[in-house]
Amino acid sequence: MLADGGRESPCLAESEDVGSRLGFASIFRLRYGLQGVWSVPTILVRNVAIVTMDSRRRIIERGSILVEGNRIRSVAGDLEGLDEADTDRVIDGSGKVVIPGFIQTHVHLCQSLFRGASDDMELMDWLRSRTWPLEAAHDEESTYYSALLGIAELLRGGTTSIVDMESVNHADSAFHAIEQSGIRAMSGKAMMDWGDDVPEALSESTERSIAESVELADKWDGAAGGRIRYAFTPRFAVSCSDRLLREVAELARARHAWIHTHSSENPGEIEVVERERGMRNVIYLDDVGLLGPQTIIAHCIHLNEDELNVLARTRSNVAHCPSSNLKLASGIARVPEMLDMGINVGLGADGAGGNNNLDQFIEMRLAALIQKPRVGPTAMLAQTVLEMATIRGAVSMGMEDDAGSIEEGKLADLVMLDLRKPHASPGAGVDLVSRIVYSAHSSDVVMTMVDGEILYEGERLVRMDEEEVLARCDEAIERLSRRAGLRA
Amino acid sequence: MLADGGRESPCLAESEDVGSRLGFASIFRLRYGLQGVWSVPTILVRNVAIVTMDSRRRIIERGSILVEGNRIRSVAGDLEGLDEADTDRVIDGSGKVVIPGFIQTHVHLCQSLFRGASDDMELMDWLRSRTWPLEAAHDEESTYYSALLGIAELLRGGTTSIVDMESVNHADSAFHAIEQSGIRAMSGKAMMDWGDDVPEALSESTERSIAESVELADKWDGAAGGRIRYAFTPRFAVSCSDRLLREVAELARARHAWIHTHSSENPGEIEVVERERGMRNVIYLDDVGLLGPQTIIAHCIHLNEDELNVLARTRSNVAHCPSSNLKLASGIARVPEMLDMGINVGLGADGAGGNNNLDQFIEMRLAALIQKPRVGPTAMLAQTVLEMATIRGAVSMGMEDDAGSIEEGKLADLVMLDLRKPHASPGAGVDLVSRIVYSAHSSDVVMTMVDGEILYEGERLVRMDEEEVLARCDEAIERLSRRAGLRA
Repeated sequence: MLADGGRESPCLAESEDVGSRLGFASIFRLRYGLQGVWSVPTILVRNVAIVTMDSRRRIIERGSILVEGNRIRSVAGDLEGLDEADTDRVIDGSGKVVIPGFIQTHVHLCQSLFRGASDDMELMDWLRSRTWPLEAAHDEESTYYSALLGIAELLRGGTTSIVDMESVNHADSAFHAIEQSGIRAMSGKAMMDWGDDVPEALSESTERSIAESVELADKWDGAAGGRIRYAFTPRFAVSCSDRLLREVAELARARHAWIHTHSSENPGEIEVVERERGMRNVIYLDDVGLLGPQTIIAHCIHLNEDELNVLARTRSNVAHCPSSNLKLASGIARVPEMLDMGINVGLGADGAGGNNNLDQFIEMRLAALIQKPRVGPTAMLAQTVLEMATIRGAVSMGMEDDAGSIEEGKLADLVMLDLRKPHASPGAGVDLVSRIVYSAHSSDVVMTMVDGEILYEGERLVRMDEEEVLARCDEAIERLSRRAGLRA
Repeated sequence: MLADGGRESPCLAESEDVGSRLGFASIFRLRYGLQGVWSVPTILVRNVAIVTMDSRRRIIERGSILVEGNRIRSVAGDLEGLDEADTDRVIDGSGKVVIPGFIQTHVHLCQSLFRGASDDMELMDWLRSRTWPLEAAHDEESTYYSALLGIAELLRGGTTSIVDMESVNHADSAFHAIEQSGIRAMSGKAMMDWGDDVPEALSESTERSIAESVELADKWDGAAGGRIRYAFTPRFAVSCSDRLLREVAELARARHAWIHTHSSENPGEIEVVERERGMRNVIYLDDVGLLGPQTIIAHCIHLNEDELNVLARTRSNVAHCPSSNLKLASGIARVPEMLDMGINVGLGADGAGGNNNLDQFIEMRLAALIQKPRVGPTAMLAQTVLEMATIRGAVSMGMEDDAGSIEEGKLADLVMLDLRKPHASPGAGVDLVSRIVYSAHSSDVVMTMVDGEILYEGERLVRMDEEEVLARCDEAIERLSRRAGLRA
């Protein structure tokens, strides 16, 4: 059993302070921020280029961002009269670029441990012979370290918010890791009460699935000053009974909660749904009441026109995962067509077991590149892709008024890049958005701030003992592989 | 005019020494190495994992590599009796991995400066409205810095050998940059004596094209102790007369020289060749005598079965460039089918103007991923891709006895990786080749050695003043853009 903030935790050296710092300090700072009290912690980033991603998509060649508590107090020319001596910290961003923190709308932190354990397989085989047995073998500790491993990679690569799907069991451990790490997340336990070939440890009754989800939602939704939210996450129609899906739809509506699921990733999956439920996958999800603006559906590759129309009409959000879709041989989602129809599409890396990275730079570049042979060279411009990686992710999470762009009053989820490297040069006269989408790498991230707190800086994760996390992950995957019968 | 090794050069602080160190020192060391004289410079890398890529594709979990002069003297268990005190330098590789240096069989160093200047266009438009005008605007200095910019990125990302195509003019400048940088390269000036829409500065007579190529070949083929070689590089059939291509074929045969060209990247290109020469592109290249085991053809996307058979029969080498092929909306080459037919396929980034990176890690991952939806999840296994990135590149250059794998007696072109990062973890029990192909990034490279000399180490290019190169590149692209009428 994990001590919540105890000595075993690799998060924060002063670990006694974890609970208060993570859960309550940010609320504290926020309250003062809103009242404008002078003693609120402030950080000023100055002399920096800013890609705002605001409604005018402004790029400020040289400006400043003042962070107060967990919010952006002012951007660029709004700083007249501000005495730098009043700020707790001044960061000189000369030559660097600040962008909104990336939002990944589909990841599986519980699969970070499975990286490299399941290459070169198609979805259903990949699930049945590797991913489900390994998920079934998870324990509280392995789930915790798997989440920290994923979060370490995400923060290093400039991702500040995620929509996460945990496994059936031990999701509470992942929430603890999320809380302690400082990342912004909407997560939930996978719901699976149906279907063959599911390991016993992942099979649950409809009642238990719902009861445990509600319990987790009660505990975690709104935790850490609102940084953590709960989403109901029926895995996909193949592993959920009709009754479960209908009850989840009602439950989420009653609680104003988000729904996060998969659909239409693979022809085999669609065939099962059509055979068992008598409908195309997305039509069926609409039939059970799961679709709407508070629903995020990963993949949506193999859709017919009716299904695309249903997504548009219900204003459901799609999570596009290009690396994972290629690697699992699933196909290429018709994202340009979806965007043309007004469907909101976010971007995500899916799980490291399938990807094998959790890197928004890789997903952005690929999201642009893979459409061009099919649709033409002007499909998926850099600007469009950066929107998917930021503000469209915020829309997916219902946070467009709070995240996804750099604007006064929004949450201070910020990423600073240093693009003065050969692979992103020359810089003179080159469109900054092109450099970010087509040339930049996650290693160009020099600072990641979530909720006004710097979590990554100077090639170091501030809250996390990374070496310890990697060591524990090596131990954990050995244990899980043996337990799942995948290693002797 | 560039001073060869003068004060303006950003290569090496002790720049007076450039000519002798680069050209002659490596020959010197090689000669002693072959004689086994004790005073030859030696480097011992010990306690390191080694991905040999030898004929048995051995992975040595923990071993040593002894480098003597510019050659690998011994690998792994061959070190008994060697006193470490005898070596000039001992590098402890604990926890790290050594792989053969990457070989990119198709790049354009002269386009490194054009990164971000020509996004979202199809090949012929991209050539006519951006790449050719910018190439036409190149001067000696801009060509030199463009090459250094590309080489800086290549060395940082673990690429030790390239097959490069320069522009029509100033190729001599690029050869100087190659010589001074220490990278291994086969390069040549683009030959263009035909076609419309080519800027005047890039149009040349057949005679001038051949005379200048021969002059460059005489000067550079075999330079820097054999580290530099000349390849005849007719750009593509669209911009070369029938007479030029036939004369190049004869010339290359007479001189035992390599030929490096493009073919079948784009349907528009194929249409021009078919209309003007009455044959499918690859059939035509065979007809003029250009194909064979000493020929490297970039792209080869839109080929019919006859053309694939001709490539196999003539044992021509294909250079696959997946990023560039996607970004220019060209398509996906049928690489698994080519490999099945026994065609040798190498890997390359093409130019930074089209890619926009020169990163073998990105090309490897993409080469694997893009085939899977079309062919299936087991198409292009990690091992196959790593072969393309190393030993198949060596075969393409006719250097399979000297490069592309870590074996006793081969050239010491080595790359050390540190994969102990969240994005490539866990490591325990995970296939090393999977980690390298699917998870690793160029930022994981901690050391790059070419010809027995460490060129990148400690996040620093040993021979190059990188900051100076980036500053000069910013100046150069401004000048070229104005000259080409692309900026005011």
